[in-house]
Amino acid sequence: MHKIDFLARTTTDDILERDFRVGEIPGVLWSPAASSDHAPVILIGHGGGLHKKTPAQVARARDLVTRWGYTVVAIDAPGHGERPISAHDQAARSEFRAALEAGDHARFEAASVDYARSLADRAVPEWQATIDALQSLPEIGPDAPIGYGGGVSLGTAIGIPLTAADTRIRAAIFGGGFFVYESQLAAARKITVPVQFLLPWDDEHVDRQSALALFDAFASPEKTLHANPGDHRTVRWIGIDQEFLPRHLGA
Amino acid sequence: MHKIDFLARTTTDDILERDFRVGEIPGVLWSPAASSDHAPVILIGHGGGLHKKTPAQVARARDLVTRWGYTVVAIDAPGHGERPISAHDQAARSEFRAALEAGDHARFEAASVDYARSLADRAVPEWQATIDALQSLPEIGPDAPIGYGGGVSLGTAIGIPLTAADTRIRAAIFGGGFFVYESQLAAARKITVPVQFLLPWDDEHVDRQSALALFDAFASPEKTLHANPGDHRTVRWIGIDQEFLPRHLGA
Repeated sequence: MHKIDFLARTTTDDILERDFRVGEIPGVLWSPAASSDHAPVILIGHGGGLHKKTPAQVARARDLVTRWGYTVVAIDAPGHGERPISAHDQAARSEFRAALEAGDHARFEAASVDYARSLADRAVPEWQATIDALQSLPEIGPDAPIGYGGGVSLGTAIGIPLTAADTRIRAAIFGGGFFVYESQLAAARKITVPVQFLLPWDDEHVDRQSALALFDAFASPEKTLHANPGDHRTVRWIGIDQEFLPRHLGA
Repeated sequence: MHKIDFLARTTTDDILERDFRVGEIPGVLWSPAASSDHAPVILIGHGGGLHKKTPAQVARARDLVTRWGYTVVAIDAPGHGERPISAHDQAARSEFRAALEAGDHARFEAASVDYARSLADRAVPEWQATIDALQSLPEIGPDAPIGYGGGVSLGTAIGIPLTAADTRIRAAIFGGGFFVYESQLAAARKITVPVQFLLPWDDEHVDRQSALALFDAFASPEKTLHANPGDHRTVRWIGIDQEFLPRHLGA
């Protein structure tokens, strides 16, 4: 098992931000500067083409720390952020950009699915190694509740197979904004923990019915679909249940 | 214009409950016992076969009074509660019960739609007369904000054409649980006020897609779909945005 190496730390507004590596995986941990002993740990996933410290993701992490005292962790997906991008991933990105420019929807969907599936296959064990390493820290340990805290698009394409594979995750927030494929549906059918599913109602590319089928597939007795107008870039979320994570993980 | 006649009044736990009639329409008004001057007025609609004072509806009304200081009003739909039922309505009910017992879905849907449409056609002007009468009360007046506060099934089948027809309603909570028909969709397309739409995800009778098409039809720039597992009798609502009405009507 890889241990966690801390690289840099800063404290702003009572929030401690620590960059780390677990093997080759770069990550960041946000926690209350005062103390975070065995606080719930929230995993958050960035969107495709983005990275662990986008302004929106940092804001979300800081809000979770301030509001509930949580420890929040993000890692760069393979080929994202600080990570080298392989020739294979470079080719995959070129292909879906070319399909998008050509206006070829079927080709765009096929390329997006191939790339997302390939990323998720690699990201799930990376997240699990990261959880292992985090649990080896005395301040977290094996008993801190763990939740998957969003978000949309690639963050969910990775989060669903991760939550299906890892019973340490006790509640999960997912969202639309990516092409749903069969192994995602199969993973969703294995998920029984509480799920909050945030659906941008008007995605430019993704068929709404596929996102509804994904929500339908979760085996969770407690699941909530929340939809607002807009696509995953323009949606303005209103009236979301902010108590979802504390209800299931404590605060 | 009919004036409002108050018939009986009781006060329990600081909530004043007044039975009234507006012409032939029996209704009930819940308000803070202390004072309700120009507080927002919330209209709530009961389900098919029920009446203005079912336990669930009374609990909902009292919660709105206690939580936000609102004035809440319910009336009996035509042929419901204290109202006489016409031979025509009696026949309509017999027809859809017979269709249900026969397991004939198409006949059940046709009968349900006919009856709901007929009730809504009569209930909309009754609600408008009730609003007129309420606005003539000094404690309400023309300036108290008005919202439609739910609920599912018949309450929404009536609430949608009412909200489309009456610009005094500034925000509305609707729900699934009834067969959607074309004039409902047409009414939804005229609605531009904020809408919160509560969808039981697994209705025994009503096609989910028709409810999603109804949500899609609202022209409101601000609309939220909230779905939980279950049908409209068994659904357990979790994580609903309780701030929806106060955000739009004040508190």
